[in-house]
Amino acid sequence: MAGGVPLPLKKLMEHFASLPGIGRKSAQRLAFHLLDIPEEEARSFAESILEARKAIHCCKVCQNFTDREVCEICGSDQRDPSVICVVENPKDVLAFERMQEYQGLYHVLHGLISPLDGVGPDQIRIKELLTRLQDTRVTEIIMATNPTIEGEATAMYISKLLLPLGLKVTRLAFGIPIGGELEYADSVTLGKALENRVDMG
Amino acid sequence: MAGGVPLPLKKLMEHFASLPGIGRKSAQRLAFHLLDIPEEEARSFAESILEARKAIHCCKVCQNFTDREVCEICGSDQRDPSVICVVENPKDVLAFERMQEYQGLYHVLHGLISPLDGVGPDQIRIKELLTRLQDTRVTEIIMATNPTIEGEATAMYISKLLLPLGLKVTRLAFGIPIGGELEYADSVTLGKALENRVDMG
Repeated sequence: MAGGVPLPLKKLMEHFASLPGIGRKSAQRLAFHLLDIPEEEARSFAESILEARKAIHCCKVCQNFTDREVCEICGSDQRDPSVICVVENPKDVLAFERMQEYQGLYHVLHGLISPLDGVGPDQIRIKELLTRLQDTRVTEIIMATNPTIEGEATAMYISKLLLPLGLKVTRLAFGIPIGGELEYADSVTLGKALENRVDMG
Repeated sequence: MAGGVPLPLKKLMEHFASLPGIGRKSAQRLAFHLLDIPEEEARSFAESILEARKAIHCCKVCQNFTDREVCEICGSDQRDPSVICVVENPKDVLAFERMQEYQGLYHVLHGLISPLDGVGPDQIRIKELLTRLQDTRVTEIIMATNPTIEGEATAMYISKLLLPLGLKVTRLAFGIPIGGELEYADSVTLGKALENRVDMG
């Protein structure tokens, strides 16, 4: 970009452009927007970033983001402590909670085992999951990592640790999405759907 | 969104969602991103907002955003002081500067006359433009407001003020965009292109 962009504005644009999914043009638009809105709103935005970073950490039980020592879900007596759903990251917890049907607890791994990226079992929160199993109320672990190579490998690795403990370990069903059309399903999804077909009798 | 989102994180999501062009899902993704990146980067982002708000104000000559008293363009001896290009907002200046062909100066109105929105000539930076005309080097004013009703009305209003002063007042050409196809041009654009046809002889 040629002259006419003062440095502090340029810096702000660069910060926006560093965010995922925000291109150069959007970053420019967002930076100008923050100069246009009332001073107080812009300050409040900046402070919400600092405040979130200061207040948010991982729940000491499930490792999900929280501003308490033990998160709202782990601390609730409305949830079923016998089931733990294991997910890759906090966004997955939000997806489950939006559904408003799951009543069990969660465990957030904060990553997946990925030897190519140098991420081994010790770099994700697996030992924190094992610690939780000292709670004898736990009977089922739902492996809800994504159906990717890393997601499958991680689910497999953890299930091999848990099965000898006599726990029920399940995996989320993968198949044709509801509302999807067979015609457009990729072969891998269609294969999964066929393999895991359910008896209608 | 159901439980599981601590308040400081929710606030950060809401701030992102208040930005133009950022929906709920993107806001969520961006908020989680700011919790994932190194503490130092998040802090630097927040500070860039505060710093931009503190350092950036309007150039006392052209009213474009700057961190100096007189902006880089107005202060440059490489620019032609005889031409002033009048635009609606600072983003338009960036568009011109990207072109790297215009060598004159700018004047940023920070809005357009719009009686329906209660914006009259006194609410935009017209008197600041008139003040600049005391500089007798100015010979041409290019009206580069958008080809909208408000943009046209503003260009018309200003040209009526300037023409009696013996200045050359020009308007940006509007027509078929380069690379565009006649087939898809709307009638108003096509009409403009026909009306302003140029002699090829």
